[in-house]
Amino acid sequence: MSSLETERTTVGWAARDPSGILSPYKYTLRNTGPEDVCIKVQYCGVCHTDLHQVRNDLGMSNYPMVPGHEVVGQVLEMGSNVSKFRVGDVVGVGLLVECCRNCRACQSDIEQYCSKKIWTYNDVYIDGKPTQGGFAETMVVDQKFVAKIPEGLEPEQVAPLLCAGVTVYSPLSHFGLNQSGLRGGILGLGGVGHMGVKIAKAMGHHVTVISSSDKKKQEALEHLGADRHLVSSDATQMKGAADSLDYILDTVPVAHPLEPYLSLLKLDGKLILIGVTDTPLQFVSPMVMLGRKSITGSFIGSMKETEEILELWKDKGLNSMIEIVKMDYINKAFERLEKNDVRYRFVVDIANSKLDQ
Amino acid sequence: MSSLETERTTVGWAARDPSGILSPYKYTLRNTGPEDVCIKVQYCGVCHTDLHQVRNDLGMSNYPMVPGHEVVGQVLEMGSNVSKFRVGDVVGVGLLVECCRNCRACQSDIEQYCSKKIWTYNDVYIDGKPTQGGFAETMVVDQKFVAKIPEGLEPEQVAPLLCAGVTVYSPLSHFGLNQSGLRGGILGLGGVGHMGVKIAKAMGHHVTVISSSDKKKQEALEHLGADRHLVSSDATQMKGAADSLDYILDTVPVAHPLEPYLSLLKLDGKLILIGVTDTPLQFVSPMVMLGRKSITGSFIGSMKETEEILELWKDKGLNSMIEIVKMDYINKAFERLEKNDVRYRFVVDIANSKLDQ
Repeated sequence: MSSLETERTTVGWAARDPSGILSPYKYTLRNTGPEDVCIKVQYCGVCHTDLHQVRNDLGMSNYPMVPGHEVVGQVLEMGSNVSKFRVGDVVGVGLLVECCRNCRACQSDIEQYCSKKIWTYNDVYIDGKPTQGGFAETMVVDQKFVAKIPEGLEPEQVAPLLCAGVTVYSPLSHFGLNQSGLRGGILGLGGVGHMGVKIAKAMGHHVTVISSSDKKKQEALEHLGADRHLVSSDATQMKGAADSLDYILDTVPVAHPLEPYLSLLKLDGKLILIGVTDTPLQFVSPMVMLGRKSITGSFIGSMKETEEILELWKDKGLNSMIEIVKMDYINKAFERLEKNDVRYRFVVDIANSKLDQ
Repeated sequence: MSSLETERTTVGWAARDPSGILSPYKYTLRNTGPEDVCIKVQYCGVCHTDLHQVRNDLGMSNYPMVPGHEVVGQVLEMGSNVSKFRVGDVVGVGLLVECCRNCRACQSDIEQYCSKKIWTYNDVYIDGKPTQGGFAETMVVDQKFVAKIPEGLEPEQVAPLLCAGVTVYSPLSHFGLNQSGLRGGILGLGGVGHMGVKIAKAMGHHVTVISSSDKKKQEALEHLGADRHLVSSDATQMKGAADSLDYILDTVPVAHPLEPYLSLLKLDGKLILIGVTDTPLQFVSPMVMLGRKSITGSFIGSMKETEEILELWKDKGLNSMIEIVKMDYINKAFERLEKNDVRYRFVVDIANSKLDQ
């Protein structure tokens, strides 16, 4: 199919200012170019980063901004060079829509570390137009950044894999922490943390959830399948668990002390930061030196890793715990997300929402 | 030779209180047991940790304390189970003199991470007596913690290898940073830092020395053989060097910001802390996440690695830059060390010092 010659008008929900309130917004999409896939959005997950962005918490927001980067939809049309999809295929889009393709990161299939990457929204595309995300009827995305959703998976179920899921999967895979028998910790049981429990269990790990209180203890153990729950403020519990973990996935997106968690790690253990915060984190050097521990971090995952986590999800028959809402609930959803009042991910049912009102 | 039945009296220089002033001190050594080596000390290096310890900077000092843990000497006598040495052999002792031998670290030949390790001084040995270090006429040490100095090496030259040298070598070896062609940074040009330049160059690396001023620039480039010098306070220099290093060995034993150095690292680069400080170090999470960088640390090295660095030193014909002093200069040496006024390591000529006055 050759590229179409008319720009397509679509409707999404955009923030207009740092209040972060979303409301209907009409805009045009670029023509579906030779490498592009035009997608009718079905579902889009709600990530904590969306909240940061619509409220300009990171000081780099541009408005109007249509957020959303856990997008699942169906292929409406494709450019002439796209052969890996068919019209009607269910596909996914994550946090990125372009990269330079030439740097060391791009050549190594870890394009998420390309310094010229282009974000799915709140960025400027190579055509000079602002990028807009998945809380919208339709998106046009270069095929490199479109993942095929394996048959048999429910589209609303896999939406959280496209950011939260691959954010967990990528470091476990990269740092060689995907073999069975390891003991892992998940710090923070939000949208990313709940994916962490699911994926670490699927890899055959003994999983400890670490929370600030025991409010989620029963759920972590009984519904999510974690093996152990620690309350970080309980010094006795924490001391008893010292030197017990091969890794901790630290999902907490606000300032917090690192030393209590470093002490939980075994020799050569890794504290993997996957929550963004601009408030400095602290530790003293002997805490890492004396056990050759590492504080490291990871940023989403590559398209290759996105395909891997989708396959793993299918192979293991996993399910995410989501709350499906309509588009007109998004402002309330952001309010609840801010209070961590969701188990564990909001997913907006875009296809069945009235977007233009 | 069977173990001797009488305790041996020796003389060393001990600190008596947190003033850290050293003066002659007589004490007894244990019998040379079946696994022990009795060593007549020839040279002992002066490490920054000695200064911390004699002054109780870490709050865990016991007095009288004979410091010194870069010890080179000759075998005087040996226990019945010791077959790898002969009387008269030149041998070395580092920071540790015992470990549990059963834990995961001990079983993996990384006994420096054993939680029951016993320090060369300011610790209690398995016989219940305090351990005393290398600023002394004689030491008795279990053979596991005695390294043979390869023939052809000058004893005063290799003393700094037993702590400073292996502290640098161990993380480069462990983290796979010992292949040629890498680009390394050495932060802080003291006793450990100068070993870092020598060893990294011997491994075939492009070496950048990072200092707080350009006072040592000429020496770093011309005498130590570094390839590049950066002044950390020069924003233009630092910016120009962004994303250029595979690793940085951070030898600074006082508080300092980590972010300027994290920014020098390439994707997947490692900031390796080898300087002890109890003042918290800070960074923000995106600095590690967006380049999958690691902040890690390492603690001295194993006996196996000590033997490896001694062999490397011999094979490459390396020399350390030391200032040889007598025992009665030690208090002045500590004063100068505190001001970083030594190029680059004091080594005490024990054998030619009058220890008892």
